[in-house]
Amino acid sequence: MSILYYTLNNSVFTNFAFYSTASVVKMMAMSALTVVKRMSKDAFANPEDLSLATNKSAVVTTSDSDVERVRRNHLNDIENIIPFVLVGIFYVGTNPDRNAALWHFRIFFISRLLHTLTYQLALPQPSRFITCMVGYFTTLSMAGRVLLTVRP
Amino acid sequence: MSILYYTLNNSVFTNFAFYSTASVVKMMAMSALTVVKRMSKDAFANPEDLSLATNKSAVVTTSDSDVERVRRNHLNDIENIIPFVLVGIFYVGTNPDRNAALWHFRIFFISRLLHTLTYQLALPQPSRFITCMVGYFTTLSMAGRVLLTVRP
Amino acid sequence: MSILYYTLNNSVFTNFAFYSTASVVKMMAMSALTVVKRMSKDAFANPEDLSLATNKSAVVTTSDSDVERVRRNHLNDIENIIPFVLVGIFYVGTNPDRNAALWHFRIFFISRLLHTLTYQLALPQPSRFITCMVGYFTTLSMAGRVLLTVRP
Repeated sequence: MSILYYTLNNSVFTNFAFYSTASVVKMMAMSALTVVKRMSKDAFANPEDLSLATNKSAVVTTSDSDVERVRRNHLNDIENIIPFVLVGIFYVGTNPDRNAALWHFRIFFISRLLHTLTYQLALPQPSRFITCMVGYFTTLSMAGRVLLTVRP
Repeated sequence: MSILYYTLNNSVFTNFAFYSTASVVKMMAMSALTVVKRMSKDAFANPEDLSLATNKSAVVTTSDSDVERVRRNHLNDIENIIPFVLVGIFYVGTNPDRNAALWHFRIFFISRLLHTLTYQLALPQPSRFITCMVGYFTTLSMAGRVLLTVRP
Repeated sequence: MSILYYTLNNSVFTNFAFYSTASVVKMMAMSALTVVKRMSKDAFANPEDLSLATNKSAVVTTSDSDVERVRRNHLNDIENIIPFVLVGIFYVGTNPDRNAALWHFRIFFISRLLHTLTYQLALPQPSRFITCMVGYFTTLSMAGRVLLTVRP
């Protein structure tokens, strides 16, 4: 029955809630990592933040390579994880096959963990590119099902 | 019956799912366009990405004007399309008039297509500004209905 | 009954819809503030935007300190408010205690108002850091409940 799609009785919904929330928490971890990097490098973007610096002669910067790497990673998460969750909400409503759905969610989540690993360790390309593409096409696969199911 | 709001039986929901997913896919296309521009201009942001460059003497850059234009467009999508989908989820729950809702979704989606067109073709202002405002006020109109309907 | 979670009959859902939409509208206000700052400072990021400048000799810039402060504030909203709404959607589905949920929503929303105030007034740190942390841990608290409730 369609009215049960968004309830704890639907394992597609609970699996989606689990992997979506885990992905969002992973994304939020980039905020914490940014703070750690800013503190360890005394690399702050606002004048009033310099009171937090260890080296009292630190100046404002928006080009520290370590901080910017974390920030690019964070923005890439925003560009990929948020579309996954938004499209996934509708995807759950299309009543997909339970196993097909679960593997979409798992593959997406793992691709984002590996993407972060390749980005923060600066592993040789195309490793990071491939991890990003896997998650990207997983979301597009879900989007395709939504568009075909609900097209006006 | 309110319990049918988020089901395939509710055309407000299916229309919203269609235009939201289409808008998110449009946003995701900016990632692909960024990759295309970075490859064609050899303009990469990470040292390890330079192995992908055609010109082996390419250096890291975050200021290529073509790449940055796509990235600003992408960020503008994030700032506008994601609020539309998030507010829209609640808007569907307020049981809006079917036609009023459909025109909100259509106008928003078309405004974002035109916004991308004006941005990537660098058309004279205020064309881009107007397309952005149309989508912005469409989302605010939906937000207004939500806030009035569910206010504590 | 679980099938009533996402309806206007569930005050956890309506309270969530109210504070989420209010938070997203607050985030959208940063777009308007960016336009105001760009116009008042003649600080535009695209060549075609210079036709909007008062000073006809204005040049393209992406480093105006006032504009960039608003933009960092906006990005911080994206990094925090969107995760709150996404995680909150699942949190509502876990049937939390009505009062516990309401205080999560209220505290989050107020923390983001105060964050914007501290950011735009450049108040001494750690005031901004604390307001950001309060909202961050509110979202993590909701995420924790989701992950424990729906874990596979």
